[in-house]
Amino acid sequence: MAKQEDIFKNVVSHAKEYGFIFPSSEVYDGLSAVYDYAQNGVELKKNIREYWWKSMVQMNENIVGLDAAILMHPTTWKASGHVDAFNDPLIDNRDSKKRYRADVLVEDYAEKLNQKAQKEIEKAKARFGDAFNEEEFVTTNARVVEYLSKYKEILSRLAKGMSEDLQDVKALIEELEIADPETGSRNWTDVKQFNLMFGTKLGASADSAMDLYLRPETAQGIFVNFLNVQKSGRMKVPFGIAQTGKAFRNEIVARQFIFRMREFEQMEMQFFVRPGEEMKWYHHWKEARLNWHLSLGLGRENYRFHDHEKLAHYANAAADIEFNFPFGFKELEGIHSRTDFDLKAHEQYSGRKLQYFDPELNENYVPYVVETSVGLDRMFLAVFATSLQEETLEDGSTRTVLKLPSVLAPTKAAILPLVKKDGLPDIARKIIEDLKWDFSVAYDEKDAVGRRYRRQDALGTPFCITVDHQTIDDETVTIRHRDTMKQDRVKISELKDIIENEVSMKNWLMKM
Amino acid sequence: MAKQEDIFKNVVSHAKEYGFIFPSSEVYDGLSAVYDYAQNGVELKKNIREYWWKSMVQMNENIVGLDAAILMHPTTWKASGHVDAFNDPLIDNRDSKKRYRADVLVEDYAEKLNQKAQKEIEKAKARFGDAFNEEEFVTTNARVVEYLSKYKEILSRLAKGMSEDLQDVKALIEELEIADPETGSRNWTDVKQFNLMFGTKLGASADSAMDLYLRPETAQGIFVNFLNVQKSGRMKVPFGIAQTGKAFRNEIVARQFIFRMREFEQMEMQFFVRPGEEMKWYHHWKEARLNWHLSLGLGRENYRFHDHEKLAHYANAAADIEFNFPFGFKELEGIHSRTDFDLKAHEQYSGRKLQYFDPELNENYVPYVVETSVGLDRMFLAVFATSLQEETLEDGSTRTVLKLPSVLAPTKAAILPLVKKDGLPDIARKIIEDLKWDFSVAYDEKDAVGRRYRRQDALGTPFCITVDHQTIDDETVTIRHRDTMKQDRVKISELKDIIENEVSMKNWLMKM
Repeated sequence: MAKQEDIFKNVVSHAKEYGFIFPSSEVYDGLSAVYDYAQNGVELKKNIREYWWKSMVQMNENIVGLDAAILMHPTTWKASGHVDAFNDPLIDNRDSKKRYRADVLVEDYAEKLNQKAQKEIEKAKARFGDAFNEEEFVTTNARVVEYLSKYKEILSRLAKGMSEDLQDVKALIEELEIADPETGSRNWTDVKQFNLMFGTKLGASADSAMDLYLRPETAQGIFVNFLNVQKSGRMKVPFGIAQTGKAFRNEIVARQFIFRMREFEQMEMQFFVRPGEEMKWYHHWKEARLNWHLSLGLGRENYRFHDHEKLAHYANAAADIEFNFPFGFKELEGIHSRTDFDLKAHEQYSGRKLQYFDPELNENYVPYVVETSVGLDRMFLAVFATSLQEETLEDGSTRTVLKLPSVLAPTKAAILPLVKKDGLPDIARKIIEDLKWDFSVAYDEKDAVGRRYRRQDALGTPFCITVDHQTIDDETVTIRHRDTMKQDRVKISELKDIIENEVSMKNWLMKM
Repeated sequence: MAKQEDIFKNVVSHAKEYGFIFPSSEVYDGLSAVYDYAQNGVELKKNIREYWWKSMVQMNENIVGLDAAILMHPTTWKASGHVDAFNDPLIDNRDSKKRYRADVLVEDYAEKLNQKAQKEIEKAKARFGDAFNEEEFVTTNARVVEYLSKYKEILSRLAKGMSEDLQDVKALIEELEIADPETGSRNWTDVKQFNLMFGTKLGASADSAMDLYLRPETAQGIFVNFLNVQKSGRMKVPFGIAQTGKAFRNEIVARQFIFRMREFEQMEMQFFVRPGEEMKWYHHWKEARLNWHLSLGLGRENYRFHDHEKLAHYANAAADIEFNFPFGFKELEGIHSRTDFDLKAHEQYSGRKLQYFDPELNENYVPYVVETSVGLDRMFLAVFATSLQEETLEDGSTRTVLKLPSVLAPTKAAILPLVKKDGLPDIARKIIEDLKWDFSVAYDEKDAVGRRYRRQDALGTPFCITVDHQTIDDETVTIRHRDTMKQDRVKISELKDIIENEVSMKNWLMKM
């Protein structure tokens, strides 16, 4: 556990030191759970977004893009259910004035009982060795039985209270004598629902001001535009609409760096299908999306599906693609079969028909929808954290290397004159002038070349191209590969093809 | 004037009909002054953004990118002056409950006097022909002298009232007996300042909730990150930080389609220079930015510089690049020499030093800043409106064609089987499979080929590639050029190079 935490701390500090991610407004001590993408982070993020966009929109004849505004008509969020149901149950402590999620307080309490049971099991396991029968132990050991039954009872009462009456959750908190974790006070208010949408007001006149929300998800922008896109684009079911963009949630407990932010970016595709064909497409997109992730080469073992047993009110099937983050397996992407819930809700609230005329069936219907939704920031974190590695080299020294998939690397090649004289910088700059039209390239002449290699390793640059004295004679340079540290001597005129072959999005997409 | 209005209406309806721009949340009757980019609009917008990004960031060794969050620490906006001074002067009519910008009411009144004078001048010009001396006429004709002197007097009193005491503006409205343009009522309230920033609240606890703003400009995100970028990127002055992103303004009177929206996107670059060198860079960037615009080939006559005489409090030089929109010349981009105003203000409010150590001068200083700031939505409108043309052909018929710069076109080529049989659709799809890795391409088999050409003309697609029966025999197709309508017969294997040569961003940037 400590090791995981260390790895995560290292990710956060490397992201800042090497210009990938800064805390937002850091000169003002930051803004909680909001981050800025720095000069290298913005390129990595752009490349991930573009890799997704190309694979979804450019590669698929029946998928088109969209860029809906963050501000939408407020009835949108009434229809989607967000006004009424996008809530967290909060409780205030009257003494400390601190606010908590009531369900998290109870869950944390229950988890302690579970931990106690696990400790007993570990102790017994250590004592009895191979002879230990865990199944038997947990049903016979009095203490463990008591801990676990209490644990399960609390969670089941919590679930009931959450779905039926929040004041039962309050009663549970009082019965368990749960105290404010910071001050120990038990002077609690009632539990209240708190809506997670950020509100704002449009217009200046007191009479005409309109309560708006910052969108808490991008999906609804696609649904309200469904018919306009279908008609103006003459789309035939099945077809998809893809979109990337910001969404906002006023999270009470936002943490884990860029994993759960108050301002975040989604990459979503809503696929409109014939009613009854949604399960076929649901399975298609589960597989297609996993393949997209695997194409980046971060390792099959870092992904797993989590099929939802409890479904959201709008879904008839749902699965997450979970990724092995530094803090364990967590949701990276969701694939949801959303039925016709959203389009029907917008029909009801707008009084407009949102139906498709199917020329093959010769009938009108509200299409069913299969959604694929991936968090761009989570994707960034997955790629960045997995790529960041400490290697021990043959000579016993270590190096920090960011083994980004080269297609996503912010800078594709650094051009380094071996020394700052003898005309080598001029040659390096001439190479840059030639390559910069095709790739993002960098120049670096400061420090010994070994240190420069290490710096580019830490930035994830796939290639270092060094101009030395031999270059003057025969127009060759060395090209060093980030991951193997192997160096080849090649002609300057070959550089473009070598880099292109390794980093071009086309080649990566073709491998998929 | 009527003609301009017609052109503009045509732009708006073409944008909707062909899937470029939809009103936001249209199923709920739209949200005022907010628009969504549809399936073709999103591609055009992405291409404009990328053309800007490549030319600014990828082409310039000393410019790097950034992507700061929309939500920032609120002190940012105190330091920048937006909390105190980003206001419009509003006045309510007590009878109609309508709200107006007080200065606009007065300006509109004054403008009518000016129009009357211009009418007299036009009449006299028509009567006297070549003998007409306008300079003499405006100083001697009693009516014109009266109109113009009154016009100037009102504007000068308005300017004084705006800068000294808003109640003088109210007095002016009463003195001129300006009435509510919709109802004729003169029952006005006092004039009040209204802040244009959208507000929201972060966090759930009543005690700890923080008043936030949606950023009204992207520039401050660069300034607060200036030192983090400079240090982690080891940047040397002069250097630039470029950023694209959304900003929000609660405009009272938002109109002219996507020209002035409440939610809009900026493409900004802040260039940090040695104090005293800012005018050199200001002139450099004025020229460089105009050249960027000209590279798109929309016509030199559509651009002009407007040098500011009245400077904002933070600037010591400022100019707009104005574009000839369907409603006249208006600001498209601003180039501002912002001095050290912003960085010094953030130093003062944060208590942190925002200084650069200049190794050549061996001294610390707060850099001066030259800003280039272009509205992405305005850029979209400029390109779209100018490209939309009605042509009369040789046979007397007309065609609507969207002559987008091909580098920006949403779809680069449409592949059309001449008929839906004889295996031609299969060949067309095989061509698509080959081209789609490099370009955004479309397939269309519906309607006669002539109608399909027209549809692609209206979408701005530079090339139509038609597969016909000869294709089966000799693997050639016709390629039709959007602007000339000329068709060539070429080998399928030549297509990629022909398209690449015409549309690649690299080639367009190289021409710059």
